[in-house]
Amino acid sequence: MAPDDELTFLRWLEETDRPDGRLDVPLGDDGAVWRLDGDQRLVLAADALCEGSHFDSGTDPALVGRKALAVNLSDLAAMGARPICALATCALPRGFDLAQAQAMTDGMRRLGELFGCPIVGGDTVTHDGGVVLSVTAIGVPEPGGPITRCGAESGHHIAVTGALGGSRSGRHLTFLPRLSESRSLLELGPPSAMIDVSDGLLIDLHRIADSSGTGFRLDADRVPRHPDGGSPLDDGEDFELLFTAPPHVMESIQGAWDHPCGLTMIGEILEVDRILKIGGSEEPAPRKGFRHA
Amino acid sequence: MAPDDELTFLRWLEETDRPDGRLDVPLGDDGAVWRLDGDQRLVLAADALCEGSHFDSGTDPALVGRKALAVNLSDLAAMGARPICALATCALPRGFDLAQAQAMTDGMRRLGELFGCPIVGGDTVTHDGGVVLSVTAIGVPEPGGPITRCGAESGHHIAVTGALGGSRSGRHLTFLPRLSESRSLLELGPPSAMIDVSDGLLIDLHRIADSSGTGFRLDADRVPRHPDGGSPLDDGEDFELLFTAPPHVMESIQGAWDHPCGLTMIGEILEVDRILKIGGSEEPAPRKGFRHA
Repeated sequence: MAPDDELTFLRWLEETDRPDGRLDVPLGDDGAVWRLDGDQRLVLAADALCEGSHFDSGTDPALVGRKALAVNLSDLAAMGARPICALATCALPRGFDLAQAQAMTDGMRRLGELFGCPIVGGDTVTHDGGVVLSVTAIGVPEPGGPITRCGAESGHHIAVTGALGGSRSGRHLTFLPRLSESRSLLELGPPSAMIDVSDGLLIDLHRIADSSGTGFRLDADRVPRHPDGGSPLDDGEDFELLFTAPPHVMESIQGAWDHPCGLTMIGEILEVDRILKIGGSEEPAPRKGFRHA
Repeated sequence: MAPDDELTFLRWLEETDRPDGRLDVPLGDDGAVWRLDGDQRLVLAADALCEGSHFDSGTDPALVGRKALAVNLSDLAAMGARPICALATCALPRGFDLAQAQAMTDGMRRLGELFGCPIVGGDTVTHDGGVVLSVTAIGVPEPGGPITRCGAESGHHIAVTGALGGSRSGRHLTFLPRLSESRSLLELGPPSAMIDVSDGLLIDLHRIADSSGTGFRLDADRVPRHPDGGSPLDDGEDFELLFTAPPHVMESIQGAWDHPCGLTMIGEILEVDRILKIGGSEEPAPRKGFRHA
C-alpha cells in the first residue's frame, strides 16, 4: 500500500467508525478505552512489527519480541494505563527455526515480567514472507487516567520525558516503556493530554494539537538531544512521553520529578498557530515525522 | 518454520509458560481466561490469517476480513463466552490498494456488527509479503461459562453442531461462528468440555481427551456429512462446536435444541482407549487433522 493511501485509509477508518456507547475513547488515540459492566474500564492497544520496516532482517529475535511488546506498553503508558496482560500472534518465515522462535518469545516474556504483563495467548503461523509480530496489550487506567490527546488548552505547558533523536541506531530495540513515569505523571498531575513519541516529536505534537483543537509553540533549542545523535524533532521511535498540563500542575510535576530520565519543558499550547521556535526565530511548525520504509 | 518445529514450539510454549494467579485458563485452550479485580473475567483469543495459508491470493478481501474475525469469535463460542470488542492489525503488501483495504475492513466490521463485537483499535503496516491479518477478540463468559477442554469424564456423551467436511471449498470464508448455539448449550447444559472444530474432528476430539485425561469412542458413521463433501473426520475449518456432557445433560440439550444447524450425538468418552468405530469395526483413532500449507 502506497504511503498516501495509508494516510487516506487511516482517515477513512476514523471517519467511517461507528460510535459505540461502551467505547469511551475511540480510534485515533494511543489506545481504545472500553467500558465494562460496572465501573471497570479496559485500555486496549494493538501494534504490529514487520521485518524490513520496524526491524532489520538479522536482528536478534529476542530484541524483536521485546520491541513488539514494548511499543504496545508505551501506548498504554501514553494513555495513563497499567498493563495487565497481552496476546501475541506471529507469522514466521518458513526458514525461521525453533531456537529463533523461542528467543523471540523469551524476549517478549522477559519484558512482560518486568512490567507485570504476562503473555496469555496467541497464535503462530508460517508463511512466505518475513516475520510479522502483532501484539495486543490490555490494561486498566491508573487512578486519574485514562489520559487522551484531547485535553490540551491554550496556555498549558508542553513537556517531554528523556531525550530525543537517533533511536533507530539501536535504542528502538531496547528502550524501556515509560510506565513508571506515566504513573508518576498521573499522581503528580495529571497531564491534560499525552502521547508517546513514536513517529517524531513534531508530528506527535501536531497530533495532540489536532485532537485538542489548539496550536502550539515548540522551542526547538530546549528539546533535549539524545547522545545517540540524529534529529530530536523528527527521528521518531523515541517512545518518550510528550504531554501538556496547566502551568501550576506542570510546576508541581517538575518539582517532584525524580525519574532518572528527566523531564524538560519544551513549549506551550497556543490557541491556533503552530510555531517552531528555533535559534531565536519563529517559523510555521512543519508536519515532519518518521515513516517506516 | 517446519511443521515439526511448529509442534515442538507449541509444546515448548506451554511447558515454559509461567502460571499467573490471575489466569484462570492458561495457554492451550481456545481462549485464555483472565480474572480482573472483583468477579469480572475476560476471555481472550488471538488468531492470525496469512495469505496463501488461510486464504488464497485473490480471495475477496471482504471475506478475508470477515474470516479473520470469525475464527476468533468461534474460539470465544467454544469457551462459552460472549464477544465485547476486538482489535485487528494488518500487514499489507505494497501493491494492496485502498479499496481492497476498505473492503477487508468492511467485511470484518459487518460480521462484528452482527455479533455485537465492534473493532475498537488496531494498526496497519506495509511490508514485502502477503496479507497477514491478526485479530484479538475480547469476551466475557456467558452465565455458566467459561467452558474449557478439560471437563470430559468417562461416560459423558460427545456431540457436534452442524455438519462437517469440505469447508475449504468455500464455507471457511462464510461460516457463522456458533455464538448463539454456544449460549444455548450453556443455558441447557452446560457442556463438560467444548472446542471448536478448526483442525478436524479427530484431532480436536483428541485435544479434548488430552486435556481431560480420558479416551473416547467416535462413531464415524454417525458424523453428519456436509453437502460440500470432503472428509468430515479430518478436513478441518468446520468451525462447529464439539462438546461433551453427562448423558442426562445431553438429553435435555437434545430435547430443547431448536437451532437450524442441528446437533448430533457422535460418541462417548472412555477412560483410556481412543477408538474410531467405522463400518461396524473398531480401530485406534488416528491423530489426523488439517494442517495449513
